[in-house]
Amino acid sequence: MEKPYAIGIDIGGTNSVFGVVDKRGHIINQGSIKTGAYKEINEYVTNLSAGVQEIIDQVGGSSNIKGIGVGAPNGNYFTGCIEFAPNLPWKGVIPLAQMLTDKLNVPVALTNDANAAAIGEMTYGAARGMKDFIVITLGTGVGSGIVVNGQLVYGHDGFAGELGHTTIQRNGRMCGCGKKGCLETYSSATGVARTAREFLETRKDPSLLRELDPKEITSKDVYDAAVKGDVLAKEIFEFTGQMLGEAFADFVAFSSPEAIILFGGLTKSSKFIFDPVRKHMEENMLPIFRNKIKLLMSELKESDAAVLGASALGWEVKDY
Amino acid sequence: MEKPYAIGIDIGGTNSVFGVVDKRGHIINQGSIKTGAYKEINEYVTNLSAGVQEIIDQVGGSSNIKGIGVGAPNGNYFTGCIEFAPNLPWKGVIPLAQMLTDKLNVPVALTNDANAAAIGEMTYGAARGMKDFIVITLGTGVGSGIVVNGQLVYGHDGFAGELGHTTIQRNGRMCGCGKKGCLETYSSATGVARTAREFLETRKDPSLLRELDPKEITSKDVYDAAVKGDVLAKEIFEFTGQMLGEAFADFVAFSSPEAIILFGGLTKSSKFIFDPVRKHMEENMLPIFRNKIKLLMSELKESDAAVLGASALGWEVKDY
Repeated sequence: MEKPYAIGIDIGGTNSVFGVVDKRGHIINQGSIKTGAYKEINEYVTNLSAGVQEIIDQVGGSSNIKGIGVGAPNGNYFTGCIEFAPNLPWKGVIPLAQMLTDKLNVPVALTNDANAAAIGEMTYGAARGMKDFIVITLGTGVGSGIVVNGQLVYGHDGFAGELGHTTIQRNGRMCGCGKKGCLETYSSATGVARTAREFLETRKDPSLLRELDPKEITSKDVYDAAVKGDVLAKEIFEFTGQMLGEAFADFVAFSSPEAIILFGGLTKSSKFIFDPVRKHMEENMLPIFRNKIKLLMSELKESDAAVLGASALGWEVKDY
Repeated sequence: MEKPYAIGIDIGGTNSVFGVVDKRGHIINQGSIKTGAYKEINEYVTNLSAGVQEIIDQVGGSSNIKGIGVGAPNGNYFTGCIEFAPNLPWKGVIPLAQMLTDKLNVPVALTNDANAAAIGEMTYGAARGMKDFIVITLGTGVGSGIVVNGQLVYGHDGFAGELGHTTIQRNGRMCGCGKKGCLETYSSATGVARTAREFLETRKDPSLLRELDPKEITSKDVYDAAVKGDVLAKEIFEFTGQMLGEAFADFVAFSSPEAIILFGGLTKSSKFIFDPVRKHMEENMLPIFRNKIKLLMSELKESDAAVLGASALGWEVKDY
């Protein structure tokens, strides 16, 4: 008999959220634990497994579970390990997929959060029926999950799809990765805040943002100002969208996707960035691609998206 | 019985070369016709088919042929058509695969020349055994064939892999495609000549190249001067390699290939560009990719490479 459920686990720097998901993408039940509360990985896995076991038991036990999918920062699909994740409490290489399989006796597949988002869109969201698309996650950083021929692009080592670290401005802003001018330094939530500080310093026009301490400005502040009609705030989003659009034009030249799908926290500001993204993407694409590539928003409900994305990977684990 | 041969046809602006190839990549016999001599496509196909039929007959007829692979500028794998190729005599959309199948009664698959080069490297050359790699063709233009999970990346419309038209300098040199700053305007044979003219105009140091009419300088002239130890000529290749290396760093962030393989006429100058490519590629890559991605030269004999590449596609056509 086909197993009716998959488990999705999304590991973030603050919370680890997990849920039981059915084939239509409904979350049957869910739970969470605080990631940061466990400095020691064994203790974390023990508590996470206990929480997951509980929701497994609620749907009749592990014989009803096809697999467990995990989305985690720096998660490597090939090794099943979290490798040197800067925002998690555990250092080095963590063989999380194996550790969870040992505790729960269900097959586990693991990948990074952006790849999980891409599989989620393909299984339940905006990319249903598509074989070639790119999901761009806009949050604290910029991530990406690339699908080609219906398969996620992992590359030879599991680390493909780092489009947030392609260079959009040669010798541009310093990035946390050690490089300069990465897309992420312009088009993430932190990138929006950096643009705000730059614009406020180099320009003289009035703005609601001038009432705030520049050091404390967040992308949320810029969003709130833009909603109130603040011109400078809107131009910050236009610049953010321009950087994305210029980058997307090059991504299209690589894999000619049917669609590029925006996913994640910053897309709340979509009404301010969507049009500039499309404009600069079209202007910078090769003529053969123009007016052919869809630009879409994620169709996964935001609070559920991470768990759904991870669970989609759970359907694909091999039976052992 | 397994059919022992495939046919490769390489269509260039000047010549169309074709050959019978065995499974080990030996060209058994070959022929060619002048592409430019046929202003009318039916006349071209009739003459090309006659030439191909001759070499088919020499190996015992079409029952010994698995398939025909064609590499052509703007060749679209999905449609089997050559679509709006600027350097060929025939305008519009040419359904060449169908036209050849009708004449020769052998299944035909068609793709662009850079994709054919990538399949050739995978089947007979430097990429044997690899599932993730990128071939960059350096000739009059810059082309690319990308392989992910052992499959060529065609994209949703057959036009993926246009890496020569990714932007390496925002608002940089005008490109024939209508965009500015494309990699091709810097790192093709014509790009090398443009760099030579720029360097000669903006710099004052002596060079053998100053003896030539700047308008007439070719990449071959720059190569010849570099071989004689000309410092300016060497720096032109260093600049060429730098542009390639910076671009490659971003390509790696996309698909994390096991190797990037250089292919085509300009790679004769490899001793002058190889080291700068590697240096700037390493400097601009995300730390997780450093010292892991191989940079290789094509292993296909140059005179045979185009036919071998196209023939490799011939092994993959479906039996009808």
